[in-house]
Order: sequence, then structure tokens, then C-alpha cells
Amino acid sequence: MPQRPPADIGMPVSEIDTPALVIDLDALERNIAKLAEVSRRTGVRLRPHTKTHKSPIIALKQIEAGAIGQCCQKVGEAEVLVAGGVRDVLVSNQVVGDRKLARLAALAQSARVALCVDAPEHIEAAGRAAREYGVELGALVEIDVGTARCGVEPGEAAVKLAQQIAATPGLRFGGLQAYHGTAQHLATWDERKAAIELAVAKTKLTVDALAAVGLSCDIVGGAGTGTFQFESTSGVYNELQCGSYLFMDTDYARIGGKTSNRYDEFEHSLFVLATVMSVPTADRAICDAGLKAYTMEKGAPWVHGRDDLEVTGVSDEHGKVRTTGAKTPLKLGDKLWLIPGHCDPTINLHDWYVGVRKGRVEAVWPIAARGASQ
Amino acid sequence: MPQRPPADIGMPVSEIDTPALVIDLDALERNIAKLAEVSRRTGVRLRPHTKTHKSPIIALKQIEAGAIGQCCQKVGEAEVLVAGGVRDVLVSNQVVGDRKLARLAALAQSARVALCVDAPEHIEAAGRAAREYGVELGALVEIDVGTARCGVEPGEAAVKLAQQIAATPGLRFGGLQAYHGTAQHLATWDERKAAIELAVAKTKLTVDALAAVGLSCDIVGGAGTGTFQFESTSGVYNELQCGSYLFMDTDYARIGGKTSNRYDEFEHSLFVLATVMSVPTADRAICDAGLKAYTMEKGAPWVHGRDDLEVTGVSDEHGKVRTTGAKTPLKLGDKLWLIPGHCDPTINLHDWYVGVRKGRVEAVWPIAARGASQ
Repeated sequence: MPQRPPADIGMPVSEIDTPALVIDLDALERNIAKLAEVSRRTGVRLRPHTKTHKSPIIALKQIEAGAIGQCCQKVGEAEVLVAGGVRDVLVSNQVVGDRKLARLAALAQSARVALCVDAPEHIEAAGRAAREYGVELGALVEIDVGTARCGVEPGEAAVKLAQQIAATPGLRFGGLQAYHGTAQHLATWDERKAAIELAVAKTKLTVDALAAVGLSCDIVGGAGTGTFQFESTSGVYNELQCGSYLFMDTDYARIGGKTSNRYDEFEHSLFVLATVMSVPTADRAICDAGLKAYTMEKGAPWVHGRDDLEVTGVSDEHGKVRTTGAKTPLKLGDKLWLIPGHCDPTINLHDWYVGVRKGRVEAVWPIAARGASQ
Repeated sequence: MPQRPPADIGMPVSEIDTPALVIDLDALERNIAKLAEVSRRTGVRLRPHTKTHKSPIIALKQIEAGAIGQCCQKVGEAEVLVAGGVRDVLVSNQVVGDRKLARLAALAQSARVALCVDAPEHIEAAGRAAREYGVELGALVEIDVGTARCGVEPGEAAVKLAQQIAATPGLRFGGLQAYHGTAQHLATWDERKAAIELAVAKTKLTVDALAAVGLSCDIVGGAGTGTFQFESTSGVYNELQCGSYLFMDTDYARIGGKTSNRYDEFEHSLFVLATVMSVPTADRAICDAGLKAYTMEKGAPWVHGRDDLEVTGVSDEHGKVRTTGAKTPLKLGDKLWLIPGHCDPTINLHDWYVGVRKGRVEAVWPIAARGASQ
């Protein structure tokens, strides 16, 4: 069951119930504008990833700023996007199961829909679903450009699948999915640059091999928040799939930038607002946000604006904060603005975004695709 | 927005859409019965923790088996419990903020409701809320018996708060909250026994100090799935607050038992059912369940019944499975039964439990308090 919103529009920020997932709307808008400008400048299209924000409201803001549509990982996310007004959706992932493929084909009756494949069986099943619904589904071949997750090897294996797609009624060959996931968080700018140079080479080789058999790629897609500078100037990729740039998190902040050891291309705009609920000792305070308000696979959250505080322990509903040496001691009811370790799965824990500006609640948006993992 | 259920009642298990959170109902019922029997045998009451299951349906099953009510961590969970028919609820946590306290007091009009305190301000605020709603709230003093999270020191500090509660109109002194969280996952039986012996001593000291000033403890509560054997035979604790015993997870399975190096007091009854969506190489398969289907703060899930497979990498919507040496190779569409690392926050990702028995779906239960973190 969806939970009640933790705030009402017009409320002062101090009255937001906690834990709450709060967006600094000014920072969000600057992040959206900054990547849109990269897209305009380079001529590489922007197709941001819904797996981060899970909200058609935010998708439409990205599209208003110049994005050409969205990508997402799951059929359930695609359904929420199309229902929310997005008309060009790429499921940047394999879809297995007739029930899911039927849902996707049904969706293609009201939007341009594509998916990814990396095996002949994917193509056969997607073609069957498309023909049954009388629609056309785009199918991109996913190639493994370094992540060793899904995807066939670049080159010949991809060409073979592309030819199968082109020969399958109901499908259109949509191009290549060439996302390098593990490159996104490599520690330094130079490491990321080197990883993407390799990915670009593998992708170019595949694009050329496809051209040699008369197949052209509508989409050559990839790039994330950590590497888009390289794909966007590669001359090979023509779509960027960044997601986290909207919000940032500590996992991205910790990687090196071009000239600094913090990655500061984008601003932190996403916070888990928490309340101090216990101050049992002079060196410890406990807040009301734990594992059910942010995820921990990338470490504990940072306390925004309070370098003198450290989250040292997290349990289901508690965050333990070390206050030794704190400039101002924490007291019951104090608010903490926590920057999550990993924005995507943290957002997936919440039903509502609370958008704030100038100290007031300006927006309360449902996270409509939260939990849409099927 | 809640997601559609991934299964219908009567369906064969093979048709459940994935990822799905699946309960082996036979195993669940055996786990419920086993701890209820401990409670009957020892005469120590059982008040299981809703923060694990988040479902009044399961709470009522525990109560039918002999539990006297529930505890929970959040006001939102208490609301779901009372609406679902539970009439005795302890929020085993501090509650800060007038809005939350008003909700709790309103709830006390239709159920016996208590909360925990560890500061004079908690008592003042809870008393005000109770009087405003014309109800009585139970208030337990939380003591720190070793976890170094919330709670005052055992002994004198607790007595002082108990006396303040007793003198506060609208509140009744409800006893002690003496849960030792960090003891639950200590690696060996003997370490856990030693930790709880210390906790018992600190709790007894406090119970005696309260008795000396004429205050008796209705509830002396604590214990989790990892240590209930010790609290239940302590002669000091009179309520057990176990939660994970319903389901188990790898984090509990990894601790040592009394006579084995696996903790097998209870059975694994909870699984994230996943589908193989890509088999890009001979040594690797990818399933459709990642960080949005289970949490990773306690490590990757185990593949139930397949010791020959290992989950080696997890991203938002992918689980990477090493198939080197697999007895049977994985193919597209194969199902994997994943045992999550940590049951409570994993459950909090899903909207529905799918209960199965003898190969069929027998129950589809909403996880009604999912996301109820306020």
C-alpha cells in the first residue's frame, strides 16, 4: 500500500515528516540543464535512465529540456512512463517471459518501444509478441563492451543477431546497446577515459561490421553519469543514458573529477531527511532513518553540510551518528540531511519525492515506478 | 503506487512472474509453531517484531499460535497493525515529533499501545499527546544492554525516567526495553550466550532498582532470533521480540548454532524468485533480480538448492551468477530461488508476498506496512 505523503505543498521545510526523500529543486533543475547542454553541444541525443528517478514527472522535465525519450530496465517502468506521457521508451535490458513480452507489445500500441537482446531466443519471442499485437518493436543488440554482464561479444556475434532481427517480422533492428556499467565508478578520470576508449573501439568495430552488411544503427546507446564526457565526444555513440546525474550520491561524489579528487560535475540534489530521535550519550546521536530509508551497499550516508558528523552504524530504522568533536551538539528533534550512498535503490524505498525550494515544500511527486521490478 | 501482484492464487509455481518474494508456507508455519512452543514451554511471552514481516496477516498468524501481540519500530507500522486487527502493540522505539505522537495517541483509542523512551523530553511529549486524546499510553524505558544505540544506562538513570513516567498523567509505566541488537549476529553460540548473560545482569539490576522504589515492570522485553534461547531462560526477561525467525536469511544462517556451524534453529522460508534473462558465456548467467529485489548490506544472496552456483555481482536489476562447474547449465527462463542476505529490508522492497505450497500459489498477501517508515 502506498504510504501517505510526508509533506504538503506550501509547508515550511521544518515541518516535513521524517524520514522523507527530499529534492532540492534548484539543484535538480541545474543538473537537468547541464547535461541537456552537453547533448545540444555535442549533437549526441540524451535518453536518460528511468531506473534512477522512477517518475514520469521527472522524465517529462528531462524531455522538456531536450531529451528525446527515456530508457528503463523493466517492463513495469516502461508502463509507468507511457501512462505518464512518455512516447519513446527503450527497455535497455533483455525481457524474458511471454507475459512480460505481451505487456511490452501492448504498450507499443501507444508509444515507440524498443528492447535489448543478446540471444536468438530473445528475438524469436519478441517477434512473436509483436506480431500477436500487430505492433513493431525495436530490438537493439546488446554488446559487452567491458562490464561482463549481459551482451554478446562485439563484432560478428552482434552482426548475426542483427541480421536475425532484420529478418524477423514484427521487429525493427534498432541499433546497439553498448553501456559500460563498471566503468562508471572507476576511481580516476583517466581510468574511466581509458575504459571508454576501449568500449568505443569495440562499438565502432561492431557498427562498421553492421554497415558492411547493410545494417545501420538508429541508436548506439550507452554512457552513464561517470563517463558521458567520453561517449558524447566519441563520434560513435549517438545516445547517452545517464540517470544519476539528476541527484548524485556519495558513490559518484567519491570518484575523481578531471581536475579534482571529488566528482563535481553535478550537484547533490537528493537527500534523506532524518530526525534525531535519541541522544543517549555525549558522543552519539541516533536518527530515525536506517536501511529502510536508504541503502547501504555503497556505504553509509554523508551528513550534508555537517563534516563534523559521521554516520557510523546503520540498522533497519536507525542511523547512529558519531558526534565527537561536533561544532554544535545534536539535540532531540534536530534534522539531518543525509546524502545516500547510492541514489537508485534509495529512491526505490520511497513512495514520494518532496521537492523544496527557498525553505518551502513546492512539490510532492509520487515515485510512480517504485517497486516496478517486473 | 503499489505494483500488481506477481501471481494469482491457484497458479503453478512455474508461472509466478519474477522477481517475486515467495514464502514456503509449510516452512513458515513450522517456524511460527517452533518459537510459539518455546514461549509456552518457558512461560515467557512472545511479542514478535513487525519490522520483519510488515503484514498484519502474518501478525495474526503469530497471535493465533500464541503470541500476545506485536512490537514494531514505527508509528506507521503500528497503524497498519491496528487496522489489521492487532490489539496490543509496542513501538519498541523512541517517537519524536508531535505529528507522530498524535497519530500514536489516536491509535490508542482502539488498541493497547506503548512506546519507548530514553529522555525526559520523550516522556513530556508523549504525556501531552495522551492527555490531548484522552488515552493512556504505555511507556517503557529503554536501557542500553550492550548495543550502544538508543537507551539510557541500566540502573539509576532508568529508575529516574520510570519515576517521571509514573508521575505523568496519560502515561503508564510499562517496563523495560532491553534488546541487545548487536548480540544477535555474533559468530558463535558461546559469544551470544556471554553477551546476553551481561545483558541479563544489567536488566536484572534495573528491575531490582525499580522494585526498590515500588515500580514493577509489566514488560521486560528483548531478544531476537539469534539469542532468544538465553533471554527465554533468564528468569528476568518476560517477553521475546524475535522477527526474522519467520523467514531466516543468510546473515542468520551464517552464525554458529549450538552444535553446528550453521544456525539452523529455523528453516529458510523466504525466497526472491528470479528468472535467468541472459546467458552470455559458458561461465556466466544473469538473472532479473538485483538491488531492487533484495538488499546487499549483508552480502549477495545464496541460490537455494544450488550449491554449484554463486551470485558474484549485483547491480540495480541484475544478479550475475557464476556457473563454472555447475551440475546443470543454466538456460534462458530458468528460475532461481534466492535466499536474501537480510530479510527485513528485502521484504521492504516488495508489495506482495506470494505464498506457495505443494507447487502451487496458495496465498497472495499485501505487504501492507512496506515503506511505513514514518
